[in-house]
Amino acid sequence: MAKQMNKNDAITGRDVDFAQWYTDVCRKAELMDYSSVKGFINYLPYSYAIWEEIQAYLNKKFKAAGASNVYLPMVIPSSLFNKEKEHIEGFAPETLVATIGGGQELADPLIIRPTSEVLFSDMYKRLVSSYRDLPKAYNQWCSVVRWEKTTRPFLRGSEFLWQEGHCLFETEEEARKNALDILEAYDALGKELLAIPFVKGVKTEKEKFAGAVATYSIEALMHDGKALQSGTTHYLGQGFADAFGIRFLGRKNVQEIPHQTSWGVSTRLLGAIIMVHGDDNGLVLPPNVAPIQVVIVPIRQDAPGVLDKCREIEAKLNELGIRVKLDDSDHTPGWKFAQWEMKGVPLRLELGPRDLESDSVCLVKRVNGEKKVASIPEIEASIPSLLQEIHKDMYEKAKAHLDANVTEVRDPEHLISVLNVGGYAKMMWCGDAACEAKVKEITNGGTARCMPFDEKPFADTCPICGKKADKVVYFAKAY
Amino acid sequence: MAKQMNKNDAITGRDVDFAQWYTDVCRKAELMDYSSVKGFINYLPYSYAIWEEIQAYLNKKFKAAGASNVYLPMVIPSSLFNKEKEHIEGFAPETLVATIGGGQELADPLIIRPTSEVLFSDMYKRLVSSYRDLPKAYNQWCSVVRWEKTTRPFLRGSEFLWQEGHCLFETEEEARKNALDILEAYDALGKELLAIPFVKGVKTEKEKFAGAVATYSIEALMHDGKALQSGTTHYLGQGFADAFGIRFLGRKNVQEIPHQTSWGVSTRLLGAIIMVHGDDNGLVLPPNVAPIQVVIVPIRQDAPGVLDKCREIEAKLNELGIRVKLDDSDHTPGWKFAQWEMKGVPLRLELGPRDLESDSVCLVKRVNGEKKVASIPEIEASIPSLLQEIHKDMYEKAKAHLDANVTEVRDPEHLISVLNVGGYAKMMWCGDAACEAKVKEITNGGTARCMPFDEKPFADTCPICGKKADKVVYFAKAY
Repeated sequence: MAKQMNKNDAITGRDVDFAQWYTDVCRKAELMDYSSVKGFINYLPYSYAIWEEIQAYLNKKFKAAGASNVYLPMVIPSSLFNKEKEHIEGFAPETLVATIGGGQELADPLIIRPTSEVLFSDMYKRLVSSYRDLPKAYNQWCSVVRWEKTTRPFLRGSEFLWQEGHCLFETEEEARKNALDILEAYDALGKELLAIPFVKGVKTEKEKFAGAVATYSIEALMHDGKALQSGTTHYLGQGFADAFGIRFLGRKNVQEIPHQTSWGVSTRLLGAIIMVHGDDNGLVLPPNVAPIQVVIVPIRQDAPGVLDKCREIEAKLNELGIRVKLDDSDHTPGWKFAQWEMKGVPLRLELGPRDLESDSVCLVKRVNGEKKVASIPEIEASIPSLLQEIHKDMYEKAKAHLDANVTEVRDPEHLISVLNVGGYAKMMWCGDAACEAKVKEITNGGTARCMPFDEKPFADTCPICGKKADKVVYFAKAY
Repeated sequence: MAKQMNKNDAITGRDVDFAQWYTDVCRKAELMDYSSVKGFINYLPYSYAIWEEIQAYLNKKFKAAGASNVYLPMVIPSSLFNKEKEHIEGFAPETLVATIGGGQELADPLIIRPTSEVLFSDMYKRLVSSYRDLPKAYNQWCSVVRWEKTTRPFLRGSEFLWQEGHCLFETEEEARKNALDILEAYDALGKELLAIPFVKGVKTEKEKFAGAVATYSIEALMHDGKALQSGTTHYLGQGFADAFGIRFLGRKNVQEIPHQTSWGVSTRLLGAIIMVHGDDNGLVLPPNVAPIQVVIVPIRQDAPGVLDKCREIEAKLNELGIRVKLDDSDHTPGWKFAQWEMKGVPLRLELGPRDLESDSVCLVKRVNGEKKVASIPEIEASIPSLLQEIHKDMYEKAKAHLDANVTEVRDPEHLISVLNVGGYAKMMWCGDAACEAKVKEITNGGTARCMPFDEKPFADTCPICGKKADKVVYFAKAY
């Protein structure tokens, strides 16, 4: 069967072939371009601008949490990288390694950073000597490299953009609080900016970060029922600090080892936005991250007064700080509608000669096609509130999808059928890694996404081994 | 002779040993930390925050010039890198090369980007096919790696932070205009943010960028009389576009080759700030980039009302958007004065019991130690204007230093003596590369910094060869 095409014939239908739909949207909405470097992409202005909105939001949150931005080298000497055993075992297989510098072979090859716990720990060793130097809370925005065999734009790439926070504290309590506070900040990013509801929780031992004592995560549910790990925070305990020789003179005048955290989100979030909100006509962007929030499409733009009025409205919206674009190109209105739908602009404003007569415009919400007529003199009040309404619409739609796709399972057959369809299977678990591995095997790839906070046990045995269970785990297939 | 120490005994005197003074300031003002990766530094919060101010300023300028931010891969396949001959010859000797990925030897080794003309050209080949696709104007903020044998914080490092703009135009005229417009933006950055006057001009053939038709630069003069190239813009002609096969269908319906530019400034600018403005007591920061613009130092902070009033003033200044810090630590006021002088905070506000009585504060300018008494009720007006006054003081001081250090030279002996003392030797030049090389030889390293715009010839022969000369060149020793 030939692939069915939707009205926007540039892209595959979302429910026809989700993977192909995703790639089509990435390219046709001009989010990215496949670079000539295999596994690496070019982030085009339209995706990079979304990333900049995320950066601005998180920078405020990080500052409120006491963190400052810094920048550390992009390379880590092999000799240094080998200091923390679990960490090196987790990352070594997927590193890119530089062996030649200035034409000479390097005595100590340089690993392109896959993450920077090592460099931060090495630096903190020099910067910290007393409890007065604590806490230390630094963050960097950078890219990291992980040599991946199969890659997908934004979701899995050999290089991706992210931020990584690295903090040191006197006590375990402070460190764990930091990891949870930042998880809250990430959750708020979903609620306030991305219109994405996350499931928040703690990872199982098997799924936690290489070298961490505990890993917390936010997990998003894509339209196709797969989960996407969207951010993690780690309580690293004292392992890195110990391995790197970080000590401080404590309040009781004895040498102590500080407690460490690290945390990060990446451009995977762009993948989440696409796969949570997108539809058959392309991208659907939440207003608070959209590079263009309102597009003005003139109808019969050659008619007297139409373009002038459009420009007047554009100027008004600009003044309000709304990101607006007037499309006065030569294309037909129909072409423009399809184009800006593909690019997911949250609100379209149409204005033609008839609207001019009635001193009104037609406003169309991208998320659901809903139309409203608004009087031009009141537009400065109606558009900002409409954008917030759209944000709410989108969040609620995504929340409804998430809620409808969490299923309690009490036996292996049900677990298998839920993960076959998609969504989360909520299961009691004994805590045994063997049962976790068994789930993966029988479901053909389902993994423990996290153990959500505040979940109450709904049964008392593990359906895999039949033993006593007190942990609630969300299993899903994941990107 | 033992090194003399100034009143701030943590650092070497500026005129005692300028190089050592520079390193001392970098470390004692907590701008950077030497990383364990040889030749690479850690940018600490205090320098990174300055860089963020520069980014915010330039992002506005770039946007106004029609450029958008993007992000391209940090690695360039060797096969791609080899396409533009002059370019590869210029950069190959100082590259860092990755040869192993995921444990396997790479068939096509990956060069860590030293600059990204190659990747942008390769991308533009896919994105551009018609004159309607032009201009294309993209910029990226990233780090680049150049394998350097001798490195100095901010001035020359194996890795540094920068921005690189890459644009394509239909015509040479537009491209050259773009290169000059951005040079103007860089110059404005100096005037408005860094309080640094630049000499603007065009580079000689010898000094231009590898692969460019013309290179324009801004050059700053450091306190020790050496020049620092602080930013460059390049008209690349059609060379890269041709080598990478970029073609577009022009207005006359024939295939054409676009004209290209690239431009960048880097964290060298932090080095310029330090070496133009710093003094024996440490850093002196221009108010518009200072991470802390006003530091409040309480005098007898245990006296009734003192800390409360300090906090009240802190809150008021915060509300005005002024970056303020109240130092209520346990240290003595004298210690605090020295500490915040070292960190170059532009304005110190002192408040003690006596000031409380007179409802006033004492304000001290970092740049010249000038003191003013200001009434507390009027502080919201006086401090912002004082900060702008400080900016002006600093710019004028730097401008006076520059103006006093440009000397017309008409014979080789004078040239040699000027470059021995420091500053610019302004010389007529025939245009022959042999004379330029001769200057370097006889002055022990003096190079043509640039040929400033709008300079009128002041003689008609080249003092090196005696032939006819119509070019005015500024020679200097440079970082």
